Amino acid sequence: MTNAFETRLYVETGLTEAAEIFLDADRTHYLRNVLRLRPGLRVQLFNGRDGEWVAEIHSLDKHTAGLTVATRARMQTREPDLWLAFAPIKRARIDFVAQKATEMGASRLWPVFTRFTQMGRVNLARMRANAIEAAEQCGRLSVPDVRDSTDLDSFVTDWPNDRVLLVCDETGCGTPILRALSGLDSRRAGFLIGPEGGLAKAELDRLGKLPNVCRVSLGPRVLRADTAALAAVACWQAAVGDWKGGPKDEM
Amino acid sequence: MTNAFETRLYVETGLTEAAEIFLDADRTHYLRNVLRLRPGLRVQLFNGRDGEWVAEIHSLDKHTAGLTVATRARMQTREPDLWLAFAPIKRARIDFVAQKATEMGASRLWPVFTRFTQMGRVNLARMRANAIEAAEQCGRLSVPDVRDSTDLDSFVTDWPNDRVLLVCDETGCGTPILRALSGLDSRRAGFLIGPEGGLAKAELDRLGKLPNVCRVSLGPRVLRADTAALAAVACWQAAVGDWKGGPKDEM
Repeated sequence: MTNAFETRLYVETGLTEAAEIFLDADRTHYLRNVLRLRPGLRVQLFNGRDGEWVAEIHSLDKHTAGLTVATRARMQTREPDLWLAFAPIKRARIDFVAQKATEMGASRLWPVFTRFTQMGRVNLARMRANAIEAAEQCGRLSVPDVRDSTDLDSFVTDWPNDRVLLVCDETGCGTPILRALSGLDSRRAGFLIGPEGGLAKAELDRLGKLPNVCRVSLGPRVLRADTAALAAVACWQAAVGDWKGGPKDEM
Repeated sequence: MTNAFETRLYVETGLTEAAEIFLDADRTHYLRNVLRLRPGLRVQLFNGRDGEWVAEIHSLDKHTAGLTVATRARMQTREPDLWLAFAPIKRARIDFVAQKATEMGASRLWPVFTRFTQMGRVNLARMRANAIEAAEQCGRLSVPDVRDSTDLDSFVTDWPNDRVLLVCDETGCGTPILRALSGLDSRRAGFLIGPEGGLAKAELDRLGKLPNVCRVSLGPRVLRADTAALAAVACWQAAVGDWKGGPKDEM
């Protein structure tokens, strides 16, 4: 029997004491047929805004599960503000990036089509589902914002001036990553991971015109795009984000 | 047509000028039927000892490929000395750890059975094949040493006194990883990643008796074992290993 207390579900509705929540058919199927929960058991709910709440299942039929929100178990806390933009890669690898980057605490996932990107489209619904599942499992109180895919020109135009852009550079010419991170004067940052074929020179030139851009290196080996994405997020979290430890207000 | 110059193969035999190398049936099949190479084309060979050499295919039939070693393209260099020990996890995830840790430059992969490890066995041949393939693709000059699996008691007994052991701690009580790494007085180190259920208290006590052991934290979220393994290797490489940049003799 699954320990119902360890079942965490992301919901979009507001969470307050005594609120009634009704789950859709997919979620209901998951509770009823996968986890084999039943009325009277409790789960944990979060929505990215109101913290984490314990809720009790009061009804559970084939079509919908009804839950009553009981008590708040954790307050919503400020979370790291790290965007991960990446050229789409093939399915298993993109699933993997969405899951792992969510576990490690990225706040936004953003597919960017570049000149040498091999993939023609990206399944955003699948990426969101992966992010939600990983968020539920890793205990975080939010789900990363999965952005609609864009092209590099729009990406550059839309990038905020006050956010550092760290471009992972496979040419070996970038600044070693921890050195680049130690010099940051902002904790609002994002990485851009290029496709397996790298970014084109014209693209690098275009990116270079942003006010807060830095090319960073992840060492002498050729990392696959998914490896580079996760290594970059891990280094940022360790150096700047909430793996750094210390008082909460340092974040 | 594949660019033959980008085909890198790991071999076990010695590499010197004019040496003749014969590949086994699997490797031959790969060159002939997958890459569709033919006699006269060149590939790159490395063996973890003699650097990287350009070799020319002189014969290629169904059973064996014959190559003549021509010139050395890169000298063997000193590589990071980082071991990654981990409780075995299920197949797709263990493949993934072997591939990614190799790309990121781990020098040893070592499966360790602990009390809460879910898997009963580990396919070492498959792990070695994954490590070799990743080493060929990422451009490194060595393949990690894939150790026979062991149990935690033997692991503790066999751990060298002069090597730091960094135990990834899911309880949140460990030292933040970069703080732990900045205090290291040795670049001979290794991580131990426990199973999804964590290490048992008796196991942590046993590990705590090693002279150079440190429990490290990878932040407040619950990372899956494969995510923790890769995050740990990335942080070590960035802080201590060859992603750090600077003069080679710093390594």
